[in-house]
Amino acid sequence: MYRALRLLARSRRLVRPPASASAPGLGEAAVLPPRTPNSARMASQNSFRIEFDTFGELKVPNDKYYGAQTVRSTMNFKIGGATERMPIPVIKAFGILKRAAAEVNQDYGLDSKIAEAIMKAADEVAEGKLNDHFPLVVWQTGSGTQTNMNVNEVISNRAIEMLGGELGSKKPVHPNDHVNKSQSSNDTFPTAMHIAAAIEVHNVLLPGLQKLHDALHAKSKEFAQIIKIGRTHTQDAVPLTLGQEFSGYVQQVKYAMARIKAAMPRVYELAAGGTAVGTGLNTRIGFAEKVAAKVAALTGLPFVTAPNKFEALAAHDALVELSGAMNTSACSLMKIANDIRFLGSGPRSGLGELILPENEPGSSIMPGKVNPTQCEALTMVAAQVMGNHVAVTVGGSNGHFELNVFKPMMIKNVLHSARLLGDAAVSFTENCVVGIQANTERINKLMNESLMLVTALNPHIGKVWELCHFRLQN
Amino acid sequence: MYRALRLLARSRRLVRPPASASAPGLGEAAVLPPRTPNSARMASQNSFRIEFDTFGELKVPNDKYYGAQTVRSTMNFKIGGATERMPIPVIKAFGILKRAAAEVNQDYGLDSKIAEAIMKAADEVAEGKLNDHFPLVVWQTGSGTQTNMNVNEVISNRAIEMLGGELGSKKPVHPNDHVNKSQSSNDTFPTAMHIAAAIEVHNVLLPGLQKLHDALHAKSKEFAQIIKIGRTHTQDAVPLTLGQEFSGYVQQVKYAMARIKAAMPRVYELAAGGTAVGTGLNTRIGFAEKVAAKVAALTGLPFVTAPNKFEALAAHDALVELSGAMNTSACSLMKIANDIRFLGSGPRSGLGELILPENEPGSSIMPGKVNPTQCEALTMVAAQVMGNHVAVTVGGSNGHFELNVFKPMMIKNVLHSARLLGDAAVSFTENCVVGIQANTERINKLMNESLMLVTALNPHIGKVWELCHFRLQN
Amino acid sequence: MYRALRLLARSRRLVRPPASASAPGLGEAAVLPPRTPNSARMASQNSFRIEFDTFGELKVPNDKYYGAQTVRSTMNFKIGGATERMPIPVIKAFGILKRAAAEVNQDYGLDSKIAEAIMKAADEVAEGKLNDHFPLVVWQTGSGTQTNMNVNEVISNRAIEMLGGELGSKKPVHPNDHVNKSQSSNDTFPTAMHIAAAIEVHNVLLPGLQKLHDALHAKSKEFAQIIKIGRTHTQDAVPLTLGQEFSGYVQQVKYAMARIKAAMPRVYELAAGGTAVGTGLNTRIGFAEKVAAKVAALTGLPFVTAPNKFEALAAHDALVELSGAMNTSACSLMKIANDIRFLGSGPRSGLGELILPENEPGSSIMPGKVNPTQCEALTMVAAQVMGNHVAVTVGGSNGHFELNVFKPMMIKNVLHSARLLGDAAVSFTENCVVGIQANTERINKLMNESLMLVTALNPHIGKVWELCHFRLQN
Amino acid sequence: MYRALRLLARSRRLVRPPASASAPGLGEAAVLPPRTPNSARMASQNSFRIEFDTFGELKVPNDKYYGAQTVRSTMNFKIGGATERMPIPVIKAFGILKRAAAEVNQDYGLDSKIAEAIMKAADEVAEGKLNDHFPLVVWQTGSGTQTNMNVNEVISNRAIEMLGGELGSKKPVHPNDHVNKSQSSNDTFPTAMHIAAAIEVHNVLLPGLQKLHDALHAKSKEFAQIIKIGRTHTQDAVPLTLGQEFSGYVQQVKYAMARIKAAMPRVYELAAGGTAVGTGLNTRIGFAEKVAAKVAALTGLPFVTAPNKFEALAAHDALVELSGAMNTSACSLMKIANDIRFLGSGPRSGLGELILPENEPGSSIMPGKVNPTQCEALTMVAAQVMGNHVAVTVGGSNGHFELNVFKPMMIKNVLHSARLLGDAAVSFTENCVVGIQANTERINKLMNESLMLVTALNPHIGKVWELCHFRLQN
Repeated sequence: MYRALRLLARSRRLVRPPASASAPGLGEAAVLPPRTPNSARMASQNSFRIEFDTFGELKVPNDKYYGAQTVRSTMNFKIGGATERMPIPVIKAFGILKRAAAEVNQDYGLDSKIAEAIMKAADEVAEGKLNDHFPLVVWQTGSGTQTNMNVNEVISNRAIEMLGGELGSKKPVHPNDHVNKSQSSNDTFPTAMHIAAAIEVHNVLLPGLQKLHDALHAKSKEFAQIIKIGRTHTQDAVPLTLGQEFSGYVQQVKYAMARIKAAMPRVYELAAGGTAVGTGLNTRIGFAEKVAAKVAALTGLPFVTAPNKFEALAAHDALVELSGAMNTSACSLMKIANDIRFLGSGPRSGLGELILPENEPGSSIMPGKVNPTQCEALTMVAAQVMGNHVAVTVGGSNGHFELNVFKPMMIKNVLHSARLLGDAAVSFTENCVVGIQANTERINKLMNESLMLVTALNPHIGKVWELCHFRLQN
Repeated sequence: MYRALRLLARSRRLVRPPASASAPGLGEAAVLPPRTPNSARMASQNSFRIEFDTFGELKVPNDKYYGAQTVRSTMNFKIGGATERMPIPVIKAFGILKRAAAEVNQDYGLDSKIAEAIMKAADEVAEGKLNDHFPLVVWQTGSGTQTNMNVNEVISNRAIEMLGGELGSKKPVHPNDHVNKSQSSNDTFPTAMHIAAAIEVHNVLLPGLQKLHDALHAKSKEFAQIIKIGRTHTQDAVPLTLGQEFSGYVQQVKYAMARIKAAMPRVYELAAGGTAVGTGLNTRIGFAEKVAAKVAALTGLPFVTAPNKFEALAAHDALVELSGAMNTSACSLMKIANDIRFLGSGPRSGLGELILPENEPGSSIMPGKVNPTQCEALTMVAAQVMGNHVAVTVGGSNGHFELNVFKPMMIKNVLHSARLLGDAAVSFTENCVVGIQANTERINKLMNESLMLVTALNPHIGKVWELCHFRLQN
Repeated sequence: MYRALRLLARSRRLVRPPASASAPGLGEAAVLPPRTPNSARMASQNSFRIEFDTFGELKVPNDKYYGAQTVRSTMNFKIGGATERMPIPVIKAFGILKRAAAEVNQDYGLDSKIAEAIMKAADEVAEGKLNDHFPLVVWQTGSGTQTNMNVNEVISNRAIEMLGGELGSKKPVHPNDHVNKSQSSNDTFPTAMHIAAAIEVHNVLLPGLQKLHDALHAKSKEFAQIIKIGRTHTQDAVPLTLGQEFSGYVQQVKYAMARIKAAMPRVYELAAGGTAVGTGLNTRIGFAEKVAAKVAALTGLPFVTAPNKFEALAAHDALVELSGAMNTSACSLMKIANDIRFLGSGPRSGLGELILPENEPGSSIMPGKVNPTQCEALTMVAAQVMGNHVAVTVGGSNGHFELNVFKPMMIKNVLHSARLLGDAAVSFTENCVVGIQANTERINKLMNESLMLVTALNPHIGKVWELCHFRLQN
Repeated sequence: MYRALRLLARSRRLVRPPASASAPGLGEAAVLPPRTPNSARMASQNSFRIEFDTFGELKVPNDKYYGAQTVRSTMNFKIGGATERMPIPVIKAFGILKRAAAEVNQDYGLDSKIAEAIMKAADEVAEGKLNDHFPLVVWQTGSGTQTNMNVNEVISNRAIEMLGGELGSKKPVHPNDHVNKSQSSNDTFPTAMHIAAAIEVHNVLLPGLQKLHDALHAKSKEFAQIIKIGRTHTQDAVPLTLGQEFSGYVQQVKYAMARIKAAMPRVYELAAGGTAVGTGLNTRIGFAEKVAAKVAALTGLPFVTAPNKFEALAAHDALVELSGAMNTSACSLMKIANDIRFLGSGPRSGLGELILPENEPGSSIMPGKVNPTQCEALTMVAAQVMGNHVAVTVGGSNGHFELNVFKPMMIKNVLHSARLLGDAAVSFTENCVVGIQANTERINKLMNESLMLVTALNPHIGKVWELCHFRLQN
């Protein structure tokens, strides 16, 4: 019984017009001229405006576009500090989504002035111009609701500012009624997740892998005539060419790209239009399809509306799948980097078949030593991606009923893996692969000693081996 | 210097004709009549024949087709006991491969009588008739060499037996020269891995998932008109139909199959023909393609020769990828099973929306309790698959140079995951999903209480909600 | 309403005396003489007795001690086949527990004849004499209930047999009322988990690691005077002794044992006495403590009763912790095995500082090659342990309310890891470590070349290095 | 041959006095007055000084204390951006270490003026005053060498500044000869890892867990008299008190702390004094012990010198172990948070036994809904910690020879886990646990319905249950 009353009380708070809120807002109007984003960031952090949510009043920094709900979240989730903020690609993806939604809402009758202001503000979010206005960490509500509200608040206030209104007044652009129109946190956040992941894959991950592929391929061609001893079980085996050895790496990276691309069709599916539980309550028919089409147009990527919105909210298998493809890629890159550092080991007491570029001062105590630092960075990245994949897997398996509530953690890890793999592939390519030289003198020496050994111990096999050697050369 | 001498000595052992080996062999001929596989298994384990490898003499049970190298391995790798034996699907895949290779070798000139005896013996291996002759554990050499030798020994001895020869004599069918002709452990084992994985996926995993998909789909249809309260954040949310809720599961399982199929093209690539390091040393041109074609014909699966044999020996990214697809499927199944057990919780103090079939006596202390045991088995399987995936990932990332030496461990885990997922999907379907009933009385009660609450607290929203309710009904 | 009726109906089934069951039971008495376990296994599998559970009649093989509930489980959980059976150490641990419980129950008034028959039968289970009577797989109910019932059935029937009764009659020894007295599946299974884990750790894991430790320590002493080039970043660094290098491995294994021991105090805590949810409903005060003391006496391990039974049933953090210690050990062993195979790489084109024992015929195509197969087995085991650890982690994190229902999966993986690590440590020690020789010729050559290089390039550093070299020698 | 020449050439570069470097340095002296750290951060980023390393000249921002090697690293490792910087706790730990080393070096004869300037500058690093001067990312050389050099450069320049010298002149305080004296990257970085981990554990992780423990314990007491239905298999079971249920959580958190503490002895071991490969080349006898004692004094934590420096450089098992303890804690916290959100589910269609505090506006579409957002943040953190643990495991298992080169990645993940767990435990405690209320009305209702059901179906069991109920109450 008391619980129902408590609920009633709570509900009243919810709908209570925050009367006192308008007063300070009005008072501030005179001192707060429309600002550009830049001037906003310049303003002192010591001045505040008072805003309200259903729990009471909150101080919002005057130089920030976010509002009460964002401030509330910063108070409730003091977990991990600034490095744990929602990744910028998610924020940018939200900018794209909110712009697309505003366009569709305009088609469906939203006031054009409001819609266009939202679009402009959303564009600024998408372009990263308002990054400072998104202070929330990943470790918040598992639906990402608070980040959706953060976006709604920033876009509404920035739009209000553009239209000459007063920050925090929610007029003429309301964060919920206008910016979030026909949407719900439950469908916007997964939509932003997919947009962000797809963009990061296309802008960072695939280009990085392509660059690595091309460099390895060039080396494979360059080394096509260099015959060397093969190694199996880390032991001497029969010969192959250094080009063939590198061709294995080329194939691995080629397939890494294929694997990632194979995961994308399901990442291109957007949840937008599902609203709270996937039924599309409160949306117009066609909204989902139109938003997906707009997002596709804005990004140039083949986004479509998810065929089943219930799955799109309640599970994030598509991200587990993408993470799995990156996990496989991490295995490939670890293998390649390990090989290259061992083949380049030395200068005297290693295998010494490759000469790796020297990128920084080496050891003062051991001159001539060139540490394979790029291989090290890449293998560390690979290990991180494997770990991230487990985090994504655990989160992906623990959704309940109509909503998976590991969303921010999942997308953080997916974006982390994509960025690290892509960046590390580029760094490894530019600072290591392109500069690799074959130490042909050493390669020949090892090759000949092995050949002599084989021939001495078993003339018949030695013959076969020489033949093989000959075949590789011709 | 001494090392070279040691190597020479070892080499001599290698080529030394084991003179003494023939004597006991001959002596045994009289007492060892040609046996059928069945009689072989009947023979006492107390009788042995003496065989030799380059290290000395070994006692081989008379009722076993394997030979010295297999026995040697059992002595060197006492790790984990009988449950750790090389999975039978790998053994059967070897049977298929050896049969295919014998066919191709016959085309290239191998004596027909020998080739055909090999084919017959290999068929028996492929059919599982000789399972008792493969005692080796997974924890052996990382290339699987010893299992390849085990297969060669069993097939050669069984073929010898068929041709009236003497077990262990290597005449007229030699395990290396004939059964392993144009092959190497390094290319046969990964070939068998891929054949085994593909067969298990097609025979167990995909049919299991399809069965589950169909049952869930039928339930989704059956429950299409039942409106229920949705739950997000484990809290009451807006309504949807029970059919819609199940449609999310249907989509997850549908995509699980799609993901697994998307991984298969790279699993269909066979390493055979690469021999020791991928160069195809000692094979005839065309051997690789012909073997792949034969395997495809024998299995009905679209196997092809791997475009790059270096990658196919040195890395097993294709299995990491397949394992990743199964890992994603495990997330899906864990979500579904968790939902179903929570929706079926009760009888009095749970959510109680579903009535799960009762399959076994419940608690004696708590009558009326139906434990969701099938959900429990399925979620345990899901956790296992996630763990197996990490083992596969670690193994896949640690290959060196021309050979990955985590092969037996990797395929063991991949096959384990495929079998468990497939079997558990069937068990869950037959013993749980098909028997699920909607507890409509309870569903309606919860729905109406929520609707009343919403309407009481906020008449406007209540109206929207009723509308939504109405829309779902019509 | 209909649900309540259904429950009533079900309940009636539960208490219905299976009248028809007694008749065939009586009829069989004449043809079924008391059997020894051995004769039981000889009996044809084609003869059955009919038993009943609340669901109806079931055919139980006449040569098996298990009963209806076990048969029911085999029908409901066809997942994974024979290799997936509940690990034998769990069965044996149940034998110990049931014996201990019978002793305590006798103290509390259980009829001595019955108690003593239970003890004898339980001893046979603990000794592994009845292993064939436990057909259930791990993938059953997540509480392990069915295995507890399997144990109760086997012990009661074996006890009945000893007392001249009729199998399946539940007289005079009832599986529930007597064998399971004061117990519940919910507290017996976790108790058996801890007993099994502790025994495996003490009998297999720690002895294996100790053996490896001692062998590495001996090598460290043996190699104390051999100065060699150090390698950091896989590149030549300053010198150290080979003994020092091995001393790092010794320390790792020493700490591996310390880590595992540090996890044991919480594994020694037993859930017995908690019964269904941890309150100890249906047990006498003191039962928990007495059972733990009996188990301690029977095993010689310092088991105690868990201070909080709610935690002991609802979570299995102690096994996650133990698995974590084994995961760390796996990292240590992978590092050691990797080092040893690289240091032993060659014969011509590797590092070649160590000569590894040759345990099996090497490559026919590449004479002189000694594959580091023991290192390969050990690193595969390490990867498996890392994967098992993730499975255990996922299971351990997913308990709900008063009961974690990933029990069989968790203990399976913990036991698997313990056995594999222990066995592999022994195999690696005996077949590799003890036979490792230093290739001093090669070590000196590499050392001198590096020293010359350093001195040539930087005389000052060369001097320091020579000094260091000198210091190591004296 | 050409390789030797190349090495010679490289070596010459190494020892070449960078003549041109001094000129601009001198020229700059006049315009660069001694600055305070604060003024340094104010200076425009557009002014640079030119510094040199063996590869050529580099532009160093005038307002930064770091030097050429740091700049070089930023150019070579463009991986992941600002959020991927070396964690601040590592930087602070380096401050402590460098201060300790300077003290010891002073004891051993380092000029007091230099030593004291180093100490002061190191203190500023330890206090976090110079955080802006550490731009390097984690994804650099795997030994952390570049961060060690970054620290050496910052401390030397800040010390130079204090002494009135010129930034970049390396006079009178040389980064290598003075700040890094008796040290090597290979021993300083692991030392800083252990210091940072231990401090984070003591300052953040353990206090957070203690706070959570205490709050749960208080709730357990508060709820001691509330009898409720227990749930096993997510199904109704026999009763227990809500206090007992919470006592299980208390025990889990208590043991979480015990597990973490059990891992610390090996974390307290410091590598300092091992220098390049663990032999202590270039250090005075006793340096290791004295540095550890100084660090212990500075931190108040019981650091000691590692008994085996080879292990301390080549492996980081201690961090894998600590990560494992945190992984177990993550399982515990996930279980607790899952229970609490399910027990608090509702308001109408959930279990509803707990009333969770309302911390932020809930759903506008579903009034009265209180999302368990703190549970969601905590379970996301738990999933992340499990993922981080796998990354640490993979890194820990892949060390080679005398050096593990996954150091920065490993410590990043360990610190991440410690911080997230500690912070999330506090947030969960303050914003959820302390405000949890028992919904006694609901608890009683469920309890009574279950009791009635049991009694109706089986009067005998009902009696037992009532007795149990009675026992719990008294």
